[in-house]
Amino acid sequence: MAVGVDLKVVVLVGGVGGAKLAHGLAQILQPEQLTVIVNTGDDLWYHGLRVCPDLDTVMYTLAGLVDKTFGWGLAGDTRHTLEALQRYGVDAWFGVGDQDLATHLLRTEWWHKGVPLTEITQRLTQALGIGCRVLPMCDAPVATKVQTIEHGELDFQTYFVKLRWQPTVTALRLDGIEAATISLEARAAIDTADVILFGPSNPWLSIAPILAVPGMKNALMAREIPRVAVTPIVEGNALKGPASKIMKELEYEVSAAAVARYYGDVVNGFVYDERDATLEIDTPHTMMMDTIMQTENDRAVLARQVLDWIVEWKNHVRLGNNSG
Amino acid sequence: MAVGVDLKVVVLVGGVGGAKLAHGLAQILQPEQLTVIVNTGDDLWYHGLRVCPDLDTVMYTLAGLVDKTFGWGLAGDTRHTLEALQRYGVDAWFGVGDQDLATHLLRTEWWHKGVPLTEITQRLTQALGIGCRVLPMCDAPVATKVQTIEHGELDFQTYFVKLRWQPTVTALRLDGIEAATISLEARAAIDTADVILFGPSNPWLSIAPILAVPGMKNALMAREIPRVAVTPIVEGNALKGPASKIMKELEYEVSAAAVARYYGDVVNGFVYDERDATLEIDTPHTMMMDTIMQTENDRAVLARQVLDWIVEWKNHVRLGNNSG
Repeated sequence: MAVGVDLKVVVLVGGVGGAKLAHGLAQILQPEQLTVIVNTGDDLWYHGLRVCPDLDTVMYTLAGLVDKTFGWGLAGDTRHTLEALQRYGVDAWFGVGDQDLATHLLRTEWWHKGVPLTEITQRLTQALGIGCRVLPMCDAPVATKVQTIEHGELDFQTYFVKLRWQPTVTALRLDGIEAATISLEARAAIDTADVILFGPSNPWLSIAPILAVPGMKNALMAREIPRVAVTPIVEGNALKGPASKIMKELEYEVSAAAVARYYGDVVNGFVYDERDATLEIDTPHTMMMDTIMQTENDRAVLARQVLDWIVEWKNHVRLGNNSG
Repeated sequence: MAVGVDLKVVVLVGGVGGAKLAHGLAQILQPEQLTVIVNTGDDLWYHGLRVCPDLDTVMYTLAGLVDKTFGWGLAGDTRHTLEALQRYGVDAWFGVGDQDLATHLLRTEWWHKGVPLTEITQRLTQALGIGCRVLPMCDAPVATKVQTIEHGELDFQTYFVKLRWQPTVTALRLDGIEAATISLEARAAIDTADVILFGPSNPWLSIAPILAVPGMKNALMAREIPRVAVTPIVEGNALKGPASKIMKELEYEVSAAAVARYYGDVVNGFVYDERDATLEIDTPHTMMMDTIMQTENDRAVLARQVLDWIVEWKNHVRLGNNSG
């Protein structure tokens, strides 16, 4: 068992990278110790179906069902429905598998019956045997809109999947965020947490929408506990996805240090990669480790190292050695 | 080419049996000569999808895509979505294939955007390369409800698929029929038809709902043209499905003659099977032929024989020899 076995952990995540850390945490914690709060700014209506790509990636990863090659979707899934859509002349650019469709069908059915996304997600995760709690960042629909030089404002998945994040981003906007509110479930998890983690997800596309949910940032910052981000940038590059490209386009320096500065005082701890040993990070508490998760075991190892470090730091704080 | 090559034909059908006759007609007529009006009383909402089983059977049959073993569904289709629904604990009793789902997804998407079912069906059939016109019996949702001894009133597909039409039927009711109305398209097709055919479909479950659409029966009976039913009962049995079982339960004699009496003066012609040579049919014009369609060619042969007979009969009428 990990040193930090009695900690209650909340981790904020987007898709693939964050899901890996969540999976690592799920491997070393008891189910009731872990709450995963997931970005839903990527969600879309796709041929009438409510699709929540990040929630699905997290669910499928935690359930051990994810396609290991892509890091998203279901292992061994087929695309017969998508191919049949093309027979009707539909440009089926968004990848939805046949098994995957079952998730979207049930979610959409319940959505139209007025079941909140939090409750929908609980039903789906329970049915998949996931013990920890997976929460959408909010119940209200929020849509990340991407302002680009080449195409003006784009829906997120048009930018991300259809145009393979090639357009140049100049700004991001969260449509519907004013009408959203932190859920009772997210609020309760944060209020009783011993540690808040920010997964190695895209700070702009995945974490920023979560922080923008009215009530979320205040709830987090009200907690004088370790609030620790794990870097998504290693050696000036994103491990996956457009994080480093977006940083350039938004005129940030592409480094873990710039990510730490972007999070500012929302976090008080920052984990960066040992490959970036020369970086100077401004966050009060910092720790260097191997953050790259290549195997399933790597995920548990990273989760354990992060929590072990946090436990040590918390003990220091109790002894009056808080450097932050 | 058939003798009746210049006729405009409207055929009323339900699922498999009617679809076969429609397919036979499509083989021998030019696309613009044929309109197929399809029962939609069997339609259902299935996990939020608008499924129209009879329309789909007719579409898939006319497009040459139908599963030839079952007579419905798509050839070579898989059921991965259905299996994945079961992983979520859903009792997925209604058979929906993965390719098939594309039809339901598009239909449902358009339905929620307010596109009438007639227009939706036109889009789907055109995309599948179907030349003739396939029309739902109406645009409004109508639901056939089945009163049974064992389970009280059942939704149609619960009776038909889930309970495999085993419950004893005491009455049928068409929920929503008052709010329905004959579409302009169906009206125009009937008003300009030279022949109306009633497919060898279940008279109670498939044809009665069509006739019950407000305006439909009047439109049909206003036309002094051949209105000819093809028997679904041969030698006292339905070729497929519950027609003969329902006839018994509703206390009809199980015979083609009883079907002809049930249709009454809505039809003025009746085609029965040569295996029933001794039957006496009350309909003014009757013809005996081999009505069993085992091969695709059988469908064209039956369609041609029916139209040839009707042309002959029409010529007789012109010569003043109308026996009806």
